[in-house]
Amino acid sequence: MADQDVVPPVVDGLPAVPSLRWDEPPEGPVLVLLDQTRLPAEEVELVCTDVQALVQAIRTLAVRGAPLLGLAGAYGVALAAARGYDVDEAAELLAHARPTAVNLGYGVRRAVAAHRRAVDEGADRGGAAAATLAEARALHGEDAEASARMAEHGLALLGELLPGGGHRILTHCNTGVLVSGGEGTAFAVARAAHRAGELRRLWVDETRPLLQGSRLTAYEAARSGMAYTLLADNAAGSLFAAGEVDAVLIGADRIAADGSVANKVGSYPLAVLARFHHVPFVVVAPSTTVDPETPDGKSIEVEQRPGHEITELSAPFVPVAGVEPGSGIPVAPLGTQAYNPAFDITPPDLVTAIVTESGVVSPVTPEGLAELCAR
Amino acid sequence: MADQDVVPPVVDGLPAVPSLRWDEPPEGPVLVLLDQTRLPAEEVELVCTDVQALVQAIRTLAVRGAPLLGLAGAYGVALAAARGYDVDEAAELLAHARPTAVNLGYGVRRAVAAHRRAVDEGADRGGAAAATLAEARALHGEDAEASARMAEHGLALLGELLPGGGHRILTHCNTGVLVSGGEGTAFAVARAAHRAGELRRLWVDETRPLLQGSRLTAYEAARSGMAYTLLADNAAGSLFAAGEVDAVLIGADRIAADGSVANKVGSYPLAVLARFHHVPFVVVAPSTTVDPETPDGKSIEVEQRPGHEITELSAPFVPVAGVEPGSGIPVAPLGTQAYNPAFDITPPDLVTAIVTESGVVSPVTPEGLAELCAR
Repeated sequence: MADQDVVPPVVDGLPAVPSLRWDEPPEGPVLVLLDQTRLPAEEVELVCTDVQALVQAIRTLAVRGAPLLGLAGAYGVALAAARGYDVDEAAELLAHARPTAVNLGYGVRRAVAAHRRAVDEGADRGGAAAATLAEARALHGEDAEASARMAEHGLALLGELLPGGGHRILTHCNTGVLVSGGEGTAFAVARAAHRAGELRRLWVDETRPLLQGSRLTAYEAARSGMAYTLLADNAAGSLFAAGEVDAVLIGADRIAADGSVANKVGSYPLAVLARFHHVPFVVVAPSTTVDPETPDGKSIEVEQRPGHEITELSAPFVPVAGVEPGSGIPVAPLGTQAYNPAFDITPPDLVTAIVTESGVVSPVTPEGLAELCAR
Repeated sequence: MADQDVVPPVVDGLPAVPSLRWDEPPEGPVLVLLDQTRLPAEEVELVCTDVQALVQAIRTLAVRGAPLLGLAGAYGVALAAARGYDVDEAAELLAHARPTAVNLGYGVRRAVAAHRRAVDEGADRGGAAAATLAEARALHGEDAEASARMAEHGLALLGELLPGGGHRILTHCNTGVLVSGGEGTAFAVARAAHRAGELRRLWVDETRPLLQGSRLTAYEAARSGMAYTLLADNAAGSLFAAGEVDAVLIGADRIAADGSVANKVGSYPLAVLARFHHVPFVVVAPSTTVDPETPDGKSIEVEQRPGHEITELSAPFVPVAGVEPGSGIPVAPLGTQAYNPAFDITPPDLVTAIVTESGVVSPVTPEGLAELCAR
């Protein structure tokens, strides 16, 4: 079950509310999410009292972004444990809420293992629940720490790749505070460049169909005081051709053992454009995004999302009289079939570097990636 | 001044109303446009009684598409002549309504020249107006004829490039009946392939920001009974990577003397993807689109459109209670700056062939293009 609290927006700085937080009101423990489908119009919290509500929030992208999905998975298991629901059943539901981001399953597994360990060691229900929550919180802390390290390594890499400074960075989708326990992945690097006075401009792809760029990255960029410009994804080619892009920085939802990168649909065309224009294409993701069980790009399951995301303009984020929240305005003829993969796969030879909290892999090779993950 | 008549939609076949037609009701001559901003929800006619209304219709894209803009320009001059307005002033206004499509200026010049010729030959106001209208109608007929020839040449070219048949064609923006006095440019070739039983699938880019693909091409494809699938522009890369695209067919708004092609923003990224995947990239346009006065791509003026096309979801085409027609639903933070070029430039070395009514240029060279235009 999920309730909604409207939180007054703040004028600048980070969002007034964290993307995700654990709370323990008198009625019992809850997981509180910032509803990302309502941004930037409203900062609304979604209060999940059970795993079903959380799964629904994951599916509708109220909570999204690879690292944050890992935290949501771990806290979701902790919520089931704390409320006395079946932990294995909750874990099963959560792990399959969305297929592509590897972090979701990772967070769930970490929390389940902590729960099992506590039970095996003789903890009672309360003790096991506390151990599970502690594990989720540990993961949360690790994620924030990983963000800070990625920002450091990423900034150093930009300095090497672009010794002239004054970086003009193109990014896709949303990879900042909203996807992470810390400052994010690719966006954290851009933010570090901004703090260092090295960011001349952040080019923000709007990121169709769900406009995470317009709604979320522009929102974070505006609050960070960055010089940013929004564009239709189609206009990125013109920027490359005009020599206006010094580097592309994106996140990742899963990285295969061979270095193939699954990320928001539209990433692969940017990688091809970047190669064609001799511009570095840099992927920033925590090492937990690397999945040694997935040998290559072909083996990554790509989530296909409903066609109405394309055939209708959805505006769940702004209440419009006459339009039900979540329902869309039709823009294509009735019955139009749509192809709507949520992600695409960029092969390793198009990726200049992968930046993780443990360091940078460049060139991207299976050996380099394995070595880095072993650190 | 423009009035609106709602025309009942038809169930299949071509639009119930032509994209543009001349009419002479008792109140005086008018130019009647199918308002393309309202498609596919409604087939609404826009009745222009003067050039100001027509210029407004051109700027808001109620009438659009390179060849159709040529006809609108010519008929607009004829309207000024028939209504007794200053023809040169009308021509000036029309020619500068939008900067990139070369056809607009061409249509205007043809009509003005016919008017001048008639006046020089001693015609009275009525006679000169009749001569101007006759020239617009001649251009209309030539355009329909050119469509038919482009479809023929394009179909033959597809047969050569893809001898296996069963073409899977990717297209961008809208290039069919709605942009032409005939069946269009690139879409006319796809339609010819469909009639010949050679079209396995038409992949339709939605074409952000104004969704000409979703709203117009899907509408034409549905009415033509084609097997078509709509996609976010971002998803084209995944189709190429999966080997699902046999050829790209697009139109053009201006072709420079060196063969550089200005077309709807997003065309250039497709050209780069096509090259990377060894897929033919074919431009279909009447020879009047070639502008010998523009030496190269750099010399083409690219129209920059307002940022609100990106920062707001505009739904002028569906009346929504609470949203003024033409106003948008904000999707980015207030004050967000947007980069919104309407077109991009594809250099000739990325274009496999240019198909015109006079034949095919391949490879695309300045000499080949000049030779073709001289036919």
